[in-house]
Amino acid sequence: MRIAQVAPLAEAVPPQLYGGTERVASWLTEELVRQGHQVTLFASGDSQTSAELVACAPRGLRLAGIRDHTASHLAMLAKVREREASFDIIHFHLDLLQHAMFADLAHKCVTTLHGRLDLPDFLPVYQAFPRMPLISISDGQRKPMPATANWLATVYHGLAPGLCPFNARGGDYLAFLGRITPEKRPDRAIEIAKRAGMPLKIAAKVDPVDEDYFRQRIKPLLDDPLIEFLGEIDEAQKAAFLGGARALLFPIDWPEPFGLVMIEAMSAGTPVIAWRNGSVPEIIEEGVSGLIVDSIADAVAACERSRAMNRFRVRSYFERHFTAARMAGDYIAAFDCLLASPRDFGKAAE
Amino acid sequence: MRIAQVAPLAEAVPPQLYGGTERVASWLTEELVRQGHQVTLFASGDSQTSAELVACAPRGLRLAGIRDHTASHLAMLAKVREREASFDIIHFHLDLLQHAMFADLAHKCVTTLHGRLDLPDFLPVYQAFPRMPLISISDGQRKPMPATANWLATVYHGLAPGLCPFNARGGDYLAFLGRITPEKRPDRAIEIAKRAGMPLKIAAKVDPVDEDYFRQRIKPLLDDPLIEFLGEIDEAQKAAFLGGARALLFPIDWPEPFGLVMIEAMSAGTPVIAWRNGSVPEIIEEGVSGLIVDSIADAVAACERSRAMNRFRVRSYFERHFTAARMAGDYIAAFDCLLASPRDFGKAAE
Repeated sequence: MRIAQVAPLAEAVPPQLYGGTERVASWLTEELVRQGHQVTLFASGDSQTSAELVACAPRGLRLAGIRDHTASHLAMLAKVREREASFDIIHFHLDLLQHAMFADLAHKCVTTLHGRLDLPDFLPVYQAFPRMPLISISDGQRKPMPATANWLATVYHGLAPGLCPFNARGGDYLAFLGRITPEKRPDRAIEIAKRAGMPLKIAAKVDPVDEDYFRQRIKPLLDDPLIEFLGEIDEAQKAAFLGGARALLFPIDWPEPFGLVMIEAMSAGTPVIAWRNGSVPEIIEEGVSGLIVDSIADAVAACERSRAMNRFRVRSYFERHFTAARMAGDYIAAFDCLLASPRDFGKAAE
Repeated sequence: MRIAQVAPLAEAVPPQLYGGTERVASWLTEELVRQGHQVTLFASGDSQTSAELVACAPRGLRLAGIRDHTASHLAMLAKVREREASFDIIHFHLDLLQHAMFADLAHKCVTTLHGRLDLPDFLPVYQAFPRMPLISISDGQRKPMPATANWLATVYHGLAPGLCPFNARGGDYLAFLGRITPEKRPDRAIEIAKRAGMPLKIAAKVDPVDEDYFRQRIKPLLDDPLIEFLGEIDEAQKAAFLGGARALLFPIDWPEPFGLVMIEAMSAGTPVIAWRNGSVPEIIEEGVSGLIVDSIADAVAACERSRAMNRFRVRSYFERHFTAARMAGDYIAAFDCLLASPRDFGKAAE
């Protein structure tokens, strides 16, 4: 299949530092190429890919100091539009801008929505262009969307091979990995660890916007022999950090649309103790790859139960559900489904 | 002429509080209606107009708590597009989003760029859609743009009648009006007033982002009998504040694309002492409506010279150059010019 992958320009594909969407776009692109598809990647010029790269900005916009990405994305979309006849499928990893420009090509356009959809800001575009085929990254992500949205499939993310190797032994600490931000609830993680009497290692960056929250709410909680704050860690450290843990704590307080760190932990064989919110009940198989909780008391009990969990079963669950190969296969199935539809696919929903 | 005015949705047209672009869009719309044109205003539903209003959001997005305006603007543009056949001219007051969606209608689309153009963020869209006719609000505003940009005209803003009535007497203080922000250089205004030995009244709001700058850099300078800090004032107070001044200080340190406050002062008969930057040399007629300076020493001397300036001449200069009637006339001339062009207008520039 001739596939255009249209990635955000915020970061390179894959990103040099952060950038969940660009990481997924990279894993998907590489896997589609490996499976024999003819893939063209529209992305920043510092991207690395085995697909054909169409450079749409010299480098990732964030590190280039570009704050408003709209113009660069519109210019990229103009390039995609120019070459549209050479693609069977155009797959966008942008949320908004393409719907107006590609409305007449809805029969071969697919958009994966990577972000949260529970803010009113974005709804007008999905209401205005209800025929554009959409892919959610969890079923939970869809909840706030208009009933008229044209969902083609849910495709869960999958990891490229080798990123977080299996660690059969694990370790004795609880892990918290992510940003220090109120919605990730590092305070809950600390309370759980203290009550469970288990060590907690926190590997997390603090964005400027979260400095006050860190200083006022989290720093005072760190002064305890059980709690270790590591700051920011890189990709290589991440695999060791997750693999060496007894369990990952994911005590979120927001409707997480996917949560890559959960499958990274599972890849290493580490079970996930997660709050029931957003995608969590879809990503975690209760008692197999993790434990789903609704309260601090639940979570403390889950820490104890996690000692008995079989890391091979966690890894095996990961391999069945969350590899890039599975993700690419799901996307190809969704593309096939769209291409086999009559041209007015989705019109009935309007 | 059947004209669509497409305003930003950030604020109502006219805005309840701030919003320079929405104020100009309102003055222009009302004046075009008054001149007998058939005008349709695409704007938020809480807008007030004598044109036909197409409500594209229930109310101004900022006060409605919507932070990302992209989706609402794209949905508005879809509404404009649906009705495009009923307009001779579609006049956008948005910077970016319409270029891709209306590229095929460039022969009847006009975009007024209201913001600064010296940031690299926005250039890709003007490079990608070089045929879209653009209007600048000063010649200076154009400088950073690509040579291929398709400029139709510069149209200076004009004020609706009665906003800042002429005050023949003026007063004895210098005025500073605007936000407290480094690029407006309130510190320069204070230094000028102190050196000139003239009272300075500062009417300015402090945005949250500028709190630190105000506290650390400006507040310590206010402790002087010559300096009076009034805080934020409303539209009615503004007319009296400007009219009662001897001169407006406009000691900017950035390429101001227009600077409405300069013509508001002139409307009241108050001359403007302004730094040579951005639009200033185009808005001020040296020695007639104000004095252009390059240094603190220049500005101090200008304060003295301003005593001798004739407020009737300032007002008369304003009336010739900066009324809404003159602005609307210029826009109609630009629209006529575009409509009289061959359909490939601007193509030679590509």
